Amino acid sequence: MNVRSYNLCPMARTSGSHSDITGPRLRAAAQRLFARQGYAAVSMRQIAAEVGVQAGALYNYIPDKQGLLFDLMKSHLDDLIAAWQAEAKGQNPLDALECFTRFHIRFHLERPDAVFIAYMELRNLEPENFAVIEDLRKRYETVLEDILRAGKESGVFSLPDTKLATMAVIAMLTGVTTWYRDDGRLSRDRIERIYWNMVRKAVGA
Amino acid sequence: MNVRSYNLCPMARTSGSHSDITGPRLRAAAQRLFARQGYAAVSMRQIAAEVGVQAGALYNYIPDKQGLLFDLMKSHLDDLIAAWQAEAKGQNPLDALECFTRFHIRFHLERPDAVFIAYMELRNLEPENFAVIEDLRKRYETVLEDILRAGKESGVFSLPDTKLATMAVIAMLTGVTTWYRDDGRLSRDRIERIYWNMVRKAVGA
Repeated sequence: MNVRSYNLCPMARTSGSHSDITGPRLRAAAQRLFARQGYAAVSMRQIAAEVGVQAGALYNYIPDKQGLLFDLMKSHLDDLIAAWQAEAKGQNPLDALECFTRFHIRFHLERPDAVFIAYMELRNLEPENFAVIEDLRKRYETVLEDILRAGKESGVFSLPDTKLATMAVIAMLTGVTTWYRDDGRLSRDRIERIYWNMVRKAVGA
Repeated sequence: MNVRSYNLCPMARTSGSHSDITGPRLRAAAQRLFARQGYAAVSMRQIAAEVGVQAGALYNYIPDKQGLLFDLMKSHLDDLIAAWQAEAKGQNPLDALECFTRFHIRFHLERPDAVFIAYMELRNLEPENFAVIEDLRKRYETVLEDILRAGKESGVFSLPDTKLATMAVIAMLTGVTTWYRDDGRLSRDRIERIYWNMVRKAVGA
């Protein structure tokens, strides 16, 4: 959970009150439970019990279940886009692509629950929430697409289709989260380097 | 739904009875509902209603909800492995990899609901069922790993890590199912060709 998501809940902004920590703790509990059991299977009562808050007081700290799912998914993508903006991007398309590859793997490996929810629970978003999340995902995909297009235009990359290459690279990199284990045979840095080797070759550089 | 999954339910084997079609129709309904709403959110009563069967008669045709999920996921992987075995494999690692690339995309695009369930509902399998499904997934991944290893050993492919390349290629190819639309700008064959171009380059061939 990041600190900013607390600010999404205006009711919890009483300075110095319990809500300063209760809101984030409830969000963290919701994220854990959604990731483990799925949004549909988790009740608000269960989230309250996890943190030791009375079910009746829950709505002082967090929105309803749909609002909570939306907040979690939006915070994840806001963080992703902000983290990329803070990243040193490299001076040319090849450096930028290496930077993106390593950044994407690192960012996603650090947030397994958020990543799981981001992919699994899209179908449970109400239409207007889905539209906001889809826009943010597209904004992030455009980061990579712009790098690939710049590399193609400058003749560094050889790509039959920039859009498909964008989707292919993101799927390949996010896939690391499905098999990575902290006690596995390879360090994160080694994994980043192996994937960068494959991505670089895949774009013909 | 495939025909074989009907045979998983011995009670339904009364020749010439309604169960010959009711079992498969119930499985197809369950697959649709699981894919749309998620396993946890769907009740057996809902599956029965979808097909017009009395809830009380349901267990004459299909196992309980967990058994149903397991049957659907197992059938999907059994079909995948059988379909690959029936495929013309190519005479060398490069041909075999092209064949695998096209096969994997084609097979998965034809079964969006089954693919969705196979990835989304792993967490809802009971441990012994999960172990069976994991074994089948590994068997399929080994198909690709063997192709990549043969290509590496014969010097056709250049790969820093065969295992990671296996996971990377499968993630990349399966990713097509997340964005593909039948009315999109590219035909399936064109998509297969573009992905084959990227896969070939990614493995250094």
